[in-house]
Amino acid sequence: MKKRTYNCGLDAAVDVVGGKWKALILWALHHEPLRFGELRRSVSGISEKMLIQQLREMETSGLVHREVYHQVPPKVEYSLTDFGRSLNTALIPLGEWGEEHMATIEAIPRD
Amino acid sequence: MKKRTYNCGLDAAVDVVGGKWKALILWALHHEPLRFGELRRSVSGISEKMLIQQLREMETSGLVHREVYHQVPPKVEYSLTDFGRSLNTALIPLGEWGEEHMATIEAIPRD
Repeated sequence: MKKRTYNCGLDAAVDVVGGKWKALILWALHHEPLRFGELRRSVSGISEKMLIQQLREMETSGLVHREVYHQVPPKVEYSLTDFGRSLNTALIPLGEWGEEHMATIEAIPRD
Repeated sequence: MKKRTYNCGLDAAVDVVGGKWKALILWALHHEPLRFGELRRSVSGISEKMLIQQLREMETSGLVHREVYHQVPPKVEYSLTDFGRSLNTALIPLGEWGEEHMATIEAIPRD
């Protein structure tokens, strides 16, 4: 296992967030635990395969907890850990900035 | 040109930040304008090609201003626009989160 090294806190944090999906999943799980199907509906545009992959990585990072209820039929719920919750809180100002500048951001030319 | 659409402010913001390099470049430019070489030294690990590409994208997004001083030899300086500065400010809590949890983040297994 290769140890990660970072320039600074922001470098480390951006590496953990690692793209838009994880940020959106954290956001979706902020209020309550969700089952896979509920989570997929909350994060619009994500494919099943991508959601599975992102959730696995987030379990590995300790951001998300996966709880299996041994009932019939079995139920699986995803929730934020304290670590995930703290990251989500740190992302709030970024989300507000995006909200505030939405029109500007949408107008940026893309290739 | 395809118009961007976003789920929410966080989605939009993460799209503008678009990975670790832009966040680190914003950070490096926070205090003062820098020339290309100075910027490259400030953002450790970035290649010349990557820095050129990121700076072009950040000019297009309106995050960074490129000022050419017509002197001999010519001098080019990069600085944050107000838009870039506001994004950088919104990233501060994320950077602090990374700083606080650095040991935990470094210990996350990577593939």
